Amino acid sequence: MSRYRCRSCASEYALDERAWRCRCGGVFDLLFEPADDAFAELDGQPWSLWRYRKALPFSRSATGWEQVTLGEGATPLVPGGENLLFKLDFLMPSLSFKDRGSVVLVAKAAELGVKRLVADSSGNAGTSIAAYATRAGIEAEVFVPAATSEKKVAQLRGYGATVRRVEGTRADAAAAAIDRVETTGSFYASHVYNPLFHQGTKTFAFELWEQLGRSLPHTVVLPAGNGTLLVGASLGFAELVAAGLTERLPRLVAVQAERCAPLARAWRLEHHLEAGDVAPGPPQETAAEGIAIAEPPRLRQMLEIVDQSDGEVVTASEDGIAEARRELAARGIDVEPTAAAAYAGWREWTGAKGAPSTVIALTGAGLKSPFAPTAG
Amino acid sequence: MSRYRCRSCASEYALDERAWRCRCGGVFDLLFEPADDAFAELDGQPWSLWRYRKALPFSRSATGWEQVTLGEGATPLVPGGENLLFKLDFLMPSLSFKDRGSVVLVAKAAELGVKRLVADSSGNAGTSIAAYATRAGIEAEVFVPAATSEKKVAQLRGYGATVRRVEGTRADAAAAAIDRVETTGSFYASHVYNPLFHQGTKTFAFELWEQLGRSLPHTVVLPAGNGTLLVGASLGFAELVAAGLTERLPRLVAVQAERCAPLARAWRLEHHLEAGDVAPGPPQETAAEGIAIAEPPRLRQMLEIVDQSDGEVVTASEDGIAEARRELAARGIDVEPTAAAAYAGWREWTGAKGAPSTVIALTGAGLKSPFAPTAG
Repeated sequence: MSRYRCRSCASEYALDERAWRCRCGGVFDLLFEPADDAFAELDGQPWSLWRYRKALPFSRSATGWEQVTLGEGATPLVPGGENLLFKLDFLMPSLSFKDRGSVVLVAKAAELGVKRLVADSSGNAGTSIAAYATRAGIEAEVFVPAATSEKKVAQLRGYGATVRRVEGTRADAAAAAIDRVETTGSFYASHVYNPLFHQGTKTFAFELWEQLGRSLPHTVVLPAGNGTLLVGASLGFAELVAAGLTERLPRLVAVQAERCAPLARAWRLEHHLEAGDVAPGPPQETAAEGIAIAEPPRLRQMLEIVDQSDGEVVTASEDGIAEARRELAARGIDVEPTAAAAYAGWREWTGAKGAPSTVIALTGAGLKSPFAPTAG
Repeated sequence: MSRYRCRSCASEYALDERAWRCRCGGVFDLLFEPADDAFAELDGQPWSLWRYRKALPFSRSATGWEQVTLGEGATPLVPGGENLLFKLDFLMPSLSFKDRGSVVLVAKAAELGVKRLVADSSGNAGTSIAAYATRAGIEAEVFVPAATSEKKVAQLRGYGATVRRVEGTRADAAAAAIDRVETTGSFYASHVYNPLFHQGTKTFAFELWEQLGRSLPHTVVLPAGNGTLLVGASLGFAELVAAGLTERLPRLVAVQAERCAPLARAWRLEHHLEAGDVAPGPPQETAAEGIAIAEPPRLRQMLEIVDQSDGEVVTASEDGIAEARRELAARGIDVEPTAAAAYAGWREWTGAKGAPSTVIALTGAGLKSPFAPTAG
């Protein structure tokens, strides 16, 4: 049985203790290693992330996931220009990459006998958790800031979630969720704290490897807020290295919005770089709302991951995000601003000039945030 | 080189003549048969409908499709109840199954040297054609009724299409599009008339066969308006039979909305059945707008297909469609009303009781038509 281990003090916890972080305040890793034969015999496996189920923390005889999966994963990798590929990771049941993590987290919760879970995202993670919770027959209670749009609330309710509006900020909603978890013993289905989520997002790395003929690109560009994809992808690449299937980690380039860039700021400080375009002072509103996280609990871990890969943290401007979205749509790919931010950050960083083989992750569908009507 | 053949008078036309229907007024089939080895060596093929490219009307050395594809196809097939599976055919780049047909039609148009195309759908087909046209570098002009919502127009423009608003009905918009085609020689990228579209939608059948371990279900339930999926799926099943890979066609159950059910009415007349719930008089508005087609040009062909499969045409009520959508969302699957109609029709027809192995096609994503906000 896999266990949680604190990244700060190395204390260990069984999964069924339902801890969501360490008593010392540290965040968890999951102690788990894929089976030796995890990547053998992939032919004939389903067109979903469950083709890698021997690399996921379920016993080999477990079948509960079959009732929870919606066929998430196995997303397209398509040409985007010279040496450039786009991974359309929004082609998932709830229309964002978050389904990778949610399905693994919720399937594991179901295996642990969870009947009620709590989440605290009004964005793609909340929607995704709600979709898989209802599929698994688990009651979901989602805490959102009172200002959350009616449209998002309606979508959560459509998936059968109970929505709790909390006066104040995103952080206040999270605090209310945690209070609920602490007082009721509900399972905290957090895409930020629970490392089971990264067990799902790590399959992004496995797919790249398989789609590229069992090799990896030089560079992978990802939007980063709480780092759910960055942490997961990095874990997946490391597992491929550990399995002897590749020698080198790709360089990981994390993209933040200029207007809310705590990771970029910390990274530049650490590397003694100028602040550049990173806005000083408190975070401002950005169209890339999926990565607008002022104080990511895994910031330290994200910095380590970027540095270990010899990577970079770059930023995207608001104009750049809007322009990148339009340019992607002109290539037939309509994504939400958070996803466009990854492409925008890459363009601003490289000048869109020739670069070593690069994959950009596109993480949320355009209809999450439809194009505004225009005159004419 | 494959050719068009009129279903009425058997006249043949080369593809590069750019005819869209026969001089006699008949609709076209495509004269084309898959290669003998079309279904051999599927292991290691891409997770998209292009894994069946030897069964598509492109020469073996053709590579142009690689610049047009967005990885469409290879959609999930997930449990929906006893003997029931859902095919999540909305998990496509433009979020509807129409991408299957559009990618093949547009890739072939590009191969034929087309620079400008005309389409006349304000719904999923128009969006899909616009997405692939811009990807292929083809200018798209889309004719829509003047009453089309700003949101849909914005989406078409997002993909770079020129939108022409036409006073009057859907039929008036089609007439204006055809007039443009006739006067300018533009390519008419019609999902209704052009049988290349069905060459794409036929891959739905191939995928079912491969996902079910090289076998087919007893019954397949599909929403039907212009029959783009019904005609294509039927063609695909027939090609599997011709290749000796299966013995029997599945029974095809076509679902229409009670409020706009020309196919259901014709089918009941033909079989001397009572009109049942099919509304008399002119069609009324239905939430299932994707299948609200008052006079489908391929109606005769659709009837033949249903009868050849020993199938049925059934209808869904408006209440049934709304309830089916809610029930699907409660299983984690959010689809638009047109897709929910297929499930609603099946439920009303079978009483949702036990039935032989059945697959229901879910054809459009819920965000195409978001849940309305509710009080509370």
